[in-house]
Amino acid sequence: MLLAVRRLRSLSLLYPTFSPRRRLPPLFGVRGKVSISPSLPEFAGKISTSPSLPEFAVTPRSVDFNAWFQDVIAKAELADDGPVKGTMIYRPYAYKIWEAIQKYLDVKFEKIGHRNLYLPQLIPNKFIEKEASHIEGFSPELAIVTIGGGKELEEKLVLRPTSETIVNYAFDRWIRSYRDLPCMINQWVNVTRWEKRTKPFLRTLEFLWQEGHTAHATFEEAEKMALQMINLYKDFAYEQIALPVIAGRKSKAETFAGATCTYTIEAMMGDKRALQSGTSHNLGQNFSRAFETRFMKENGDMQHVWQTSSAVSTRLIGGIIMTHGDDTGLMLPPRIAPIQVVIVPIWNKSDEETSVLEAATTVHNTLTEAGIRVELDKSNQETPGWKFNFWEMKGVPLRLEIGPRDVTNKSVVVSRRTVPGKVGKEFGVSMEASTLVNYVKSRLEEIQDVLLQRAISFRDSNIVDVSSYGELKEAIAEGKWARGPWSASAAEELKVKKETSATLRCFPFEQPEGDKKCFMTGKPAEEVAIFAKSY
Amino acid sequence: MLLAVRRLRSLSLLYPTFSPRRRLPPLFGVRGKVSISPSLPEFAGKISTSPSLPEFAVTPRSVDFNAWFQDVIAKAELADDGPVKGTMIYRPYAYKIWEAIQKYLDVKFEKIGHRNLYLPQLIPNKFIEKEASHIEGFSPELAIVTIGGGKELEEKLVLRPTSETIVNYAFDRWIRSYRDLPCMINQWVNVTRWEKRTKPFLRTLEFLWQEGHTAHATFEEAEKMALQMINLYKDFAYEQIALPVIAGRKSKAETFAGATCTYTIEAMMGDKRALQSGTSHNLGQNFSRAFETRFMKENGDMQHVWQTSSAVSTRLIGGIIMTHGDDTGLMLPPRIAPIQVVIVPIWNKSDEETSVLEAATTVHNTLTEAGIRVELDKSNQETPGWKFNFWEMKGVPLRLEIGPRDVTNKSVVVSRRTVPGKVGKEFGVSMEASTLVNYVKSRLEEIQDVLLQRAISFRDSNIVDVSSYGELKEAIAEGKWARGPWSASAAEELKVKKETSATLRCFPFEQPEGDKKCFMTGKPAEEVAIFAKSY
Repeated sequence: MLLAVRRLRSLSLLYPTFSPRRRLPPLFGVRGKVSISPSLPEFAGKISTSPSLPEFAVTPRSVDFNAWFQDVIAKAELADDGPVKGTMIYRPYAYKIWEAIQKYLDVKFEKIGHRNLYLPQLIPNKFIEKEASHIEGFSPELAIVTIGGGKELEEKLVLRPTSETIVNYAFDRWIRSYRDLPCMINQWVNVTRWEKRTKPFLRTLEFLWQEGHTAHATFEEAEKMALQMINLYKDFAYEQIALPVIAGRKSKAETFAGATCTYTIEAMMGDKRALQSGTSHNLGQNFSRAFETRFMKENGDMQHVWQTSSAVSTRLIGGIIMTHGDDTGLMLPPRIAPIQVVIVPIWNKSDEETSVLEAATTVHNTLTEAGIRVELDKSNQETPGWKFNFWEMKGVPLRLEIGPRDVTNKSVVVSRRTVPGKVGKEFGVSMEASTLVNYVKSRLEEIQDVLLQRAISFRDSNIVDVSSYGELKEAIAEGKWARGPWSASAAEELKVKKETSATLRCFPFEQPEGDKKCFMTGKPAEEVAIFAKSY
Repeated sequence: MLLAVRRLRSLSLLYPTFSPRRRLPPLFGVRGKVSISPSLPEFAGKISTSPSLPEFAVTPRSVDFNAWFQDVIAKAELADDGPVKGTMIYRPYAYKIWEAIQKYLDVKFEKIGHRNLYLPQLIPNKFIEKEASHIEGFSPELAIVTIGGGKELEEKLVLRPTSETIVNYAFDRWIRSYRDLPCMINQWVNVTRWEKRTKPFLRTLEFLWQEGHTAHATFEEAEKMALQMINLYKDFAYEQIALPVIAGRKSKAETFAGATCTYTIEAMMGDKRALQSGTSHNLGQNFSRAFETRFMKENGDMQHVWQTSSAVSTRLIGGIIMTHGDDTGLMLPPRIAPIQVVIVPIWNKSDEETSVLEAATTVHNTLTEAGIRVELDKSNQETPGWKFNFWEMKGVPLRLEIGPRDVTNKSVVVSRRTVPGKVGKEFGVSMEASTLVNYVKSRLEEIQDVLLQRAISFRDSNIVDVSSYGELKEAIAEGKWARGPWSASAAEELKVKKETSATLRCFPFEQPEGDKKCFMTGKPAEEVAIFAKSY
């Protein structure tokens, strides 16, 4: 085995452009360019720590957060640039995270009564133009098809940047009376927005999302739905991806183009910037008036429907990376990790290989049968140390190490992604099926909780309560979030943005009690608002 | 209750453009324009047959197959036209069928080793031009984005008609050595092809599909994969959607633009036209040479990878409609039916309502817990007769009717979609949980099998073995498929097409034994080919 590795190494010296890589693992077959360094230390026997190998080195988060983010995306094999500048390839490992998000949300949506469907992505330009603020908001970002089947088209067609307009085309066909309401649909699709500055997962020309759309008989019902959706997103963020988002209402200036009111969940990234991670909109009758989407009330009167829309996107994956990742790589919350547990078998002499792999396979099967997503890395192309680095970069929450002595003792060694090095290891955990399954399950729950608690602490220690504009400036200058009473004008909101680069992220639903005075104007304020620099 | 219905009816006379409809059912919330006819007969008590109501009337299949197809799509609420001519809206009921197809295939693909991902839909025009026959085949169908963010783009961007080119861009980044092979990916996406003549599900400007792409170290491995995929599709078609497709190889003339060899599954629709229902392609090194996608062999040599691609699309839903549907509407194979069983409670006096609904709910829960997809239609807006018609139009395989007498007897009445009228009814089927569950499961299996067997009989009785061109012409003129030995030239294949409108669908994998003579030239032939008119 080692001979083969050595031969490859010498090949790699002969062919400098060729990076020999490890065999494809069963679960995520497409590997990035990870070269085996000629200076790779050769581990023999059990490894108790995971020294960083050069090929897994990333720019430290503290040095350059953006460079760190890009490095982790590349080395954890999450995404690649597409051939068109600003587009991206979602690689299988990232796509699997998206599938986990879809699976969870789809059940929740269906419970509420949303039905999945698919609406065309080609939207007549005149549709987009129908709702005044909608076209104003989206026109700078549109991608337009002008040629079809070799001919110049008579009408330009827009690639959907969002689907409110075409939804109203459909609702208009389906909704006649109050008995057809509420009408609730959802689609998981690609959308296109011609953004000037792009960044993988956060802002690309094309991205994946879900968009929910509903129509109701009254304003109140629409309002209730918009709130229900943002709270559904909030619960999802807390429970599944360990993002302690703050839910609230957007200011008028930050409201969705075409909405009466926008609700948001805002997450604090590792560099303390805010990430708008999901939104729901009460659209009022803005689109139904533009598209004449009406229904007959019980009393026979005709009325425009009241609508909502809501969305989360693959941006959430960016949020997961930037909230939990560290200088060793990705750190995935167990509930959405494609691989929750990796088993690394360790042997020295070839006569140990059989018994170690046999025990590792048994453990693999035991955990798989218990519904745990587990990967057995039995490749013999790399050292255990290499594997430790690789799976840590991939953010796998738990690692089980099984060496010859563990086989004898019928036990495993456990490492948590959340506690690096020897200190985080647990030795002698029994291999016995029921013990191990319970142990692993509770450890995964614990890791899920640790990630959330860490993020909450980080968030809370970086929000400053301010009572003057000066204090806000100071907080923002330190990179923190500022929270303070606000009842000033849109012009003053713009002034804050211009002078500090911070925007009003939201008026949080959770508000302190008592009388408040606007930190900007000194006038009475009903609510506190949060200001922060954002992505 | 009846009062309310009457009031709505009179309203519908006052407002002729307004069609009052029944309340939204829990599962598929968006109903089409099904108007309650003023001449609706009022059923009281148990209904034993399902007389056709005018609002569910469709053009008979025998009169105009195309009109029948369009009628069923509208009345079973499968699809609507999109605002751009040639596009379509996949309504929730059809989308649910697509999700069932996805769910089944995803498991199969993953078992083979395919990994889901997402590649950008925007492809630089120069990519499409790289492979000569690919651009020749696709250029008439391209939709092209020329404006982005308000500016004319420097390079025109093509909306993917298929992804071989961008796949090679990605493979080129990911594949270095033989150890990275095979590389197998899959994506579920929208694709765009600017077709001149469109038809819902069969051919629209935009449609949904999955596309699998693989790269291998040898021609033989690629060939094996292409065959494995077409056989996977074939098994799926037989087992899940009861389409007895014929698998085979395409002629050179019908081979995919860019492939070395194309395999196909061909299904016979209710009007005997052939529907190409899935394809897999051995791409050879055509794309890897165009894109310089190379790998290092074990001996150190560099070589272009050998590739395959394969796809099935929402066209399959069209195939399901046109294979199993009848003049009463859709008929869905139980394995992919969104609703496998509908329960229609029937009561006369209001004091019966409670006990009937209670029993129906119990049955609903029993079947749901057994993993059966069941819908309880307890709406009191329509008569049982209306509901019978409605759910028959929707193609629900089994209907359980529960009236007051059934409650007393602790039994249900069962109707199969495959056997219309009183003759198909079974009375007195016990409500007892284990009995009913077993009964329903075996009935669903039986219906699945009946649909397949019917389709097989229909197919086999409409394929004619021919030994001369005259016989072929005769068979085609009768609307049938012609099967006969073929070793003639592409020019002669074109002649058949021009003179009869039939094309060479495939050389089936299953071949008769013995010596054969080409029915066109009289020269020795190695294989029989199937000719048919197709969609």
